[in-house]
Amino acid sequence: MSFLDEVPWDQAGLIAAVTQDSRSGRVLTVAWMNREALEQSVACGEAVYWSRSRKRLWRKGEQSGHVQKIVELRLDCDADALLIKVEQVGGIACHTGRESCFFRKLEDGRWVTTDPVLKDPSLIYGK
Amino acid sequence: MSFLDEVPWDQAGLIAAVTQDSRSGRVLTVAWMNREALEQSVACGEAVYWSRSRKRLWRKGEQSGHVQKIVELRLDCDADALLIKVEQVGGIACHTGRESCFFRKLEDGRWVTTDPVLKDPSLIYGK
Repeated sequence: MSFLDEVPWDQAGLIAAVTQDSRSGRVLTVAWMNREALEQSVACGEAVYWSRSRKRLWRKGEQSGHVQKIVELRLDCDADALLIKVEQVGGIACHTGRESCFFRKLEDGRWVTTDPVLKDPSLIYGK
Repeated sequence: MSFLDEVPWDQAGLIAAVTQDSRSGRVLTVAWMNREALEQSVACGEAVYWSRSRKRLWRKGEQSGHVQKIVELRLDCDADALLIKVEQVGGIACHTGRESCFFRKLEDGRWVTTDPVLKDPSLIYGK
């Protein structure tokens, strides 16, 4: 049996994937994988997700170059989430040009942006 | 507007919540919150989730005593995931008696259990 068969893909055929920087320990992104995305991720050693909005496989970094090289892949106890430790190429995981997608923090009942933009998105993606 | 209104709750009224140990940086759990769970979590300073299987609010640690004290709450760029940094009481987040729910690692195409059971679950939950 393949490791892919041990994942109880949800009704949409997906599993949540938490990606963490293997060096800083920072949680970078939460995205989704289907069977093919996980298979390709393992085969090529770089994160491939399923884009729910675009309804297609999404090779992380395909436009930005901000590829996520997989260091370690973990599965949780009820097998409904993956944890992917990565080397984040460019040090930027978020499409806003920030290190992590979790750049807003709850402070006194408000979501406050705490993290700097490291690179202007227009320079990452073109205008 | 409340911070609760800025969360675009999904069709089931939920958002994914990744919980991370604030000291070790270890990702402990992925669970779900609805509006009431997030509101109660912020109000009491301890993680309250929505149990999809039991269809009720689930105060983490209510049986085990392994409460998660919230240190920091973050929201991601497209607001479909929360990151909760916690102090994990007892050092055990998983119902199997392990530190983290992500105790299985992909090695040579197989999910291998790499983490020790720190406390027998029968001692945590009773028999």
